[in-house]
Amino acid sequence: MIVSSLLTSVGINFGLCVLFFTLYSVLRKQPSNYDVYIPRLVADGKSQKRSRFNLERLLPTPGWLRRAWQPSEEELLASSGLDAVVFMRIIIFSLKVFCFAGIIGIFILLPVNFTGSQLQNVDFANLTNDSLDVFSISNVDNGSKRLWIHFSAVYIVTIFVCYLLYCEYRYVSFKRLAYFYSSEPQPHQFTILVRSIPVSAGASISDSVYSFFTEYHPSTYISHMVIRRTNKLRNLISDMRRLSSRLIHLRGEPTRTKCERCGCCGMFRSKIKVDLANHYEKKLEDLEENLRLEQSEVSLAGQEVRAAFVSFKSRYGAACAFHMQQSINPTQWVTEQAPEPRDVYWPFFSSTFMGTWISKLLVIIASIALTTLFLLPVLFVQGLANLDQLEIWFPFLESILSITFISQVVTGYFPNLILQLFLKVVPPIMKFFSSIQGYISNSDIEKSACDKVVWFTIWNVFFGNVLFGVSSQSSIYLARTEKNSWKASCYRSSTVQKLNSGLSVPEQLPDLQVICFLLGAGVPHSMNTTSCLEWKVVGSDMCSLLSECKEAVFMFLLAEPRAAIPLRQGWTSVSSELVRVIPLIFSLIRKPCISSEHEFEVPSLPYHRDIPKLLFFGLLGITYFFLAPLILPFLLIYFCVGYIIYRNQFINVYAPKYETAGKFWPIVHNSMIFSLLLMHAIALGIFTLKKLPLASTSIIPLPILTLLFNAYCRKRFLPIFIAYSAETLIKKDREDRDVAAMAEFFDKMETSYQDPALLPIQYSINSDSHTSPLLYPAIYS
Amino acid sequence: MIVSSLLTSVGINFGLCVLFFTLYSVLRKQPSNYDVYIPRLVADGKSQKRSRFNLERLLPTPGWLRRAWQPSEEELLASSGLDAVVFMRIIIFSLKVFCFAGIIGIFILLPVNFTGSQLQNVDFANLTNDSLDVFSISNVDNGSKRLWIHFSAVYIVTIFVCYLLYCEYRYVSFKRLAYFYSSEPQPHQFTILVRSIPVSAGASISDSVYSFFTEYHPSTYISHMVIRRTNKLRNLISDMRRLSSRLIHLRGEPTRTKCERCGCCGMFRSKIKVDLANHYEKKLEDLEENLRLEQSEVSLAGQEVRAAFVSFKSRYGAACAFHMQQSINPTQWVTEQAPEPRDVYWPFFSSTFMGTWISKLLVIIASIALTTLFLLPVLFVQGLANLDQLEIWFPFLESILSITFISQVVTGYFPNLILQLFLKVVPPIMKFFSSIQGYISNSDIEKSACDKVVWFTIWNVFFGNVLFGVSSQSSIYLARTEKNSWKASCYRSSTVQKLNSGLSVPEQLPDLQVICFLLGAGVPHSMNTTSCLEWKVVGSDMCSLLSECKEAVFMFLLAEPRAAIPLRQGWTSVSSELVRVIPLIFSLIRKPCISSEHEFEVPSLPYHRDIPKLLFFGLLGITYFFLAPLILPFLLIYFCVGYIIYRNQFINVYAPKYETAGKFWPIVHNSMIFSLLLMHAIALGIFTLKKLPLASTSIIPLPILTLLFNAYCRKRFLPIFIAYSAETLIKKDREDRDVAAMAEFFDKMETSYQDPALLPIQYSINSDSHTSPLLYPAIYS
Repeated sequence: MIVSSLLTSVGINFGLCVLFFTLYSVLRKQPSNYDVYIPRLVADGKSQKRSRFNLERLLPTPGWLRRAWQPSEEELLASSGLDAVVFMRIIIFSLKVFCFAGIIGIFILLPVNFTGSQLQNVDFANLTNDSLDVFSISNVDNGSKRLWIHFSAVYIVTIFVCYLLYCEYRYVSFKRLAYFYSSEPQPHQFTILVRSIPVSAGASISDSVYSFFTEYHPSTYISHMVIRRTNKLRNLISDMRRLSSRLIHLRGEPTRTKCERCGCCGMFRSKIKVDLANHYEKKLEDLEENLRLEQSEVSLAGQEVRAAFVSFKSRYGAACAFHMQQSINPTQWVTEQAPEPRDVYWPFFSSTFMGTWISKLLVIIASIALTTLFLLPVLFVQGLANLDQLEIWFPFLESILSITFISQVVTGYFPNLILQLFLKVVPPIMKFFSSIQGYISNSDIEKSACDKVVWFTIWNVFFGNVLFGVSSQSSIYLARTEKNSWKASCYRSSTVQKLNSGLSVPEQLPDLQVICFLLGAGVPHSMNTTSCLEWKVVGSDMCSLLSECKEAVFMFLLAEPRAAIPLRQGWTSVSSELVRVIPLIFSLIRKPCISSEHEFEVPSLPYHRDIPKLLFFGLLGITYFFLAPLILPFLLIYFCVGYIIYRNQFINVYAPKYETAGKFWPIVHNSMIFSLLLMHAIALGIFTLKKLPLASTSIIPLPILTLLFNAYCRKRFLPIFIAYSAETLIKKDREDRDVAAMAEFFDKMETSYQDPALLPIQYSINSDSHTSPLLYPAIYS
Repeated sequence: MIVSSLLTSVGINFGLCVLFFTLYSVLRKQPSNYDVYIPRLVADGKSQKRSRFNLERLLPTPGWLRRAWQPSEEELLASSGLDAVVFMRIIIFSLKVFCFAGIIGIFILLPVNFTGSQLQNVDFANLTNDSLDVFSISNVDNGSKRLWIHFSAVYIVTIFVCYLLYCEYRYVSFKRLAYFYSSEPQPHQFTILVRSIPVSAGASISDSVYSFFTEYHPSTYISHMVIRRTNKLRNLISDMRRLSSRLIHLRGEPTRTKCERCGCCGMFRSKIKVDLANHYEKKLEDLEENLRLEQSEVSLAGQEVRAAFVSFKSRYGAACAFHMQQSINPTQWVTEQAPEPRDVYWPFFSSTFMGTWISKLLVIIASIALTTLFLLPVLFVQGLANLDQLEIWFPFLESILSITFISQVVTGYFPNLILQLFLKVVPPIMKFFSSIQGYISNSDIEKSACDKVVWFTIWNVFFGNVLFGVSSQSSIYLARTEKNSWKASCYRSSTVQKLNSGLSVPEQLPDLQVICFLLGAGVPHSMNTTSCLEWKVVGSDMCSLLSECKEAVFMFLLAEPRAAIPLRQGWTSVSSELVRVIPLIFSLIRKPCISSEHEFEVPSLPYHRDIPKLLFFGLLGITYFFLAPLILPFLLIYFCVGYIIYRNQFINVYAPKYETAGKFWPIVHNSMIFSLLLMHAIALGIFTLKKLPLASTSIIPLPILTLLFNAYCRKRFLPIFIAYSAETLIKKDREDRDVAAMAEFFDKMETSYQDPALLPIQYSINSDSHTSPLLYPAIYS
């Protein structure tokens, strides 16, 4: 990529950012958009829905920035919970890392790269238009002593990142413990979930649970709640919801000013409406009757699932039961920590043990398939960024693409947009996969989806490039050689000559093996399938194939433009998060159709969508900082903008739906460790190719030490995120002994794990209370 | 291998077996060998050491066979513990499997193979003298429908083995639970080991333990025993032992008839002896004084290690403390199940946490290095089995090796012996590795060593063959081509022609990929290093290299002779186990030097040496049964002989040193599952090469189902072997409540984990009790 193309792209993105910011500061002040931009404040009653019109409403103001900046971490913790704090810690962590790496990169590495002379001798411009490469490590002379500066940077940044990782892990685990100590008694602290309860002939599951726990845990057991099969009920309730929503829309419109304006509705239409309303009302009452019957049937008869929530007198008692295998047969009386009552994913319980097992297997297969097959659109989209490629695929476009501006837009911005749209679909799919995997809580589902999306992103956006790099190189050559094999072979041999003189001689085969090994299966795979055949056509021998391949891999490693694409993706995505484009559009579409007052609900941040994004940019920054330090300013701006925007969103938009108390942090830690290891692998390859073998062997201790550091962290901090220790639990239990309200709490606890589908629900409007508005239970949303 | 060579080898081995049996039945009756052959009976006082001489003592009698056959499993359990029963179950399990597989193999597969006509057309005899191959699957015609019989055999045997594995796992876990229920209260059931105890300023570790457990486990905690650094003491004690042993030898000889005979010792010699004895006595008394001082110092001062055995009132209480993370900091108060007091490996405690960690890492590296580098002698030894190879390496031997008998001995027996000797060194080395890995008990060390030896054996003896097969093939060709390149290339091309016509055409490259994949890294590795270069010399292109390689791998798979080598190894090794050659030699050497009465000690079976042997023959039988069914009779005889011999040894020789209560079984299970998977992989390759693609694709579900079966077994049975369930422990605790002797037991328990080095020990003979013989404590043996 040439500098001007990068600048065009940066310009477009910067413009978009400013546009989004301005748009947001105007749109958020419109009362009709309060549902979209400040749903939390609306729900808390802090903002009045209707305010008088004034001019100030149409002017962009930066006041929200100040308000987003102000709250301290304690205030954020109080209002949005520990998960939000952990999310913000990811951004703060990344800012710290990239400030440090940025100083080294911009003030030390960049001048070193720029003053190198490697690329002056090799004319790369004709090959792929790579002029940004003068800022990257590829401009440093092969075998130059200056590469030791890069080497030291790798060591220093690794040590710094590990130190920060340690501090953050400790900080988050302290926060987690502090959160636990300061928490009120909560039902899930005293409760475990027991699955695979054996059924003895004649006795119900409830009896079985009662007799088992009174037998083996007589001093701590309090009560239990057997789970019932409520699929049917849930279907009924969702039918009722739909019906009642329609009914309210038909009936409740008088309160809305909008409908008063469209006074053209005739008598006929209103007659139909009344008839329809009565019909719906009748149907709703039938459904309600049905539901009540069904509910009583489920409560009475043998609709019990072989699982139950069992509550104990103390947290320590519950933990003892959770940690130990209960039954002689380890597949019976399987215990798990109970999630918060609001966090339980009720539909899960309807599947059997075998069913869960099979679906888990299928989910794993499906996730792997999605992750690998997704490469096809990615490859296509990435291909658009390469003009050469486009010209080969669509020769008729050649004339259009020769216009500078169009080619710059095509290479600079267009591909990102398409890729972005593709990537948008992935988190919901992964969440769906996780939801059928057998987790008992929404938080577990989200955590598992988060993991899946992280690996998906790393594999597709990072390693996809290797595959693309190699296959596109070879197909360009192929296409050219097919056109004119003589010209092609001349061209090829000269290219190889040039590259070899600049980069490495073809005799040094071991180098390639190192790189192939480093970059995983990507390269050998594409060699086997496409390249091997293609090169046979050209008639080249194996040695030259390998050296071409090496060249392609090397090109990829230094491909700053490709690294810059996701960066600019990041800018767009984080600003569009501010404007909430999709909810806004939905809100605009739905507004005239349904009565928004009743459907209104505060959203929660989809962690499985946003954490992988942050982690991916972290990975990109860590792996590229020493190759192409130019990446760092873009990353810093991304994280700064992200910091302010997400704080704003936590204050105004997202309310916590559940609390994992920081359980997302281990995912972050693992991903960062992986980034470091990848960075070391790339450094090993680069130093080998740059003919500094001493440096590449001296890199080897670094990944080993990083892995040892990770092993230590797993021992030191990870257990805290899995379960609380005996010391913690006993201390907390002792505190409670003196609290008078505990008896009341235990009374309440007995029913807290009642399936909401079994609670009495009423949607229909009784004849005697026709005018009273009913609040909607938002259980299954 | 030709049939006559096999028969020679079988003859030698059978002869050796008979010889060993005869030798044993005579030797065991000699009173001087009682220490070697019936140490258990001697220790129990069931056998008088001195019996009168009679002729019957010199005649071989089969009475011991009857006595070994008689005891029931319950009697074995009572006398030798559950570990011995589990060991015998491995043999019984293998017998069942190979009886079933043997019936299928001998009566169905063998006739099918023999009546095939594949090898009649291809003249293999000139190539490697393979005439046993007519009994193997290689004689079945390519693409023949008869291969479906082999296919069905693979399915049926897999199902049968899985069924048996399930039954055995269940049986052993029942036995384990029954053993626990029927056991007397034992200290280790009530005790946990706590490590990484934090030190608070001013307080001792003992205080710290006391305050922690009275704080958090006030209702169940009884007592604790802090571990002390006793390296110095152990050194002193071993010095004392050595000295006192010499002293007794000098002084105590009057009781021995042997010395009376050598009456030639003059006055001078006896004077020196008295002086020396006095000197030793003085030194011993000094050492004892030293030891007493050291002991009192260790007991008083800050020689405490940050680890302690903590005892509880109930098994459930101990289990709760063991299963839960105790401290907020997971690296402190780390809990573990305590081993039996006699099983504790005291030297471990002298190393620090970091030290243990580093030594663990080093041990892993060392084990991998040993496992891979061991291939060198193996390859050399295996090379001896190949006459062609020998002739190439040592051309001067050509004339000697042409003598039929010598060549048969060389190929049939000699290599095994050398390999055996090499392999004998491995288990002690692996045990040494495990002992510095940080395990707290001898049983854990032995289990870990067992695992290491299993993988060592599988890798070296099984996969080593692949490497050897490929590299020897290529080096034969290389040598020949160097001699006469024209002749060689003719030879080669004709061989390839022949092989290809018989086996597969060189265009079908994917086949090779399958095999390479199946047989792990072995083949590609050797291709890269040796063959690639060698083939360049010959100037062949890549395609022919690949087809040669394929041929070599195929040859290996069908190499019944190589499979027969370890079989005959087995016969020798199991009969030499009966005669206990090495202990016998040691006993004969030591007898005149030391007073055997005091040093006498009952040995225990080294499970880490013998379990891997049995498992390896199991692996061999399972993987080869459908390729070369001729292997099965040999295996059956091996296991039958093993059954009777090991029963005999358990009754007469080995006493249990500790009891893991069946914890060795999971290793057996895993190894069998691995064998099945390997069998499926080989079947996949063979059916592909035999041009029955439908069969090879139909094999694919089998490994998947086997893995699922294994996953189920891990959930169903493995937890039982890790810790007992709450149900089990609470039941057992309740039983004890009614036992009157419990108070006494708890009193005793407090001192049961006392380090034996801190107990008062006396070796020197006091002036007032000069004649009374002292019993030797055999603590550190």
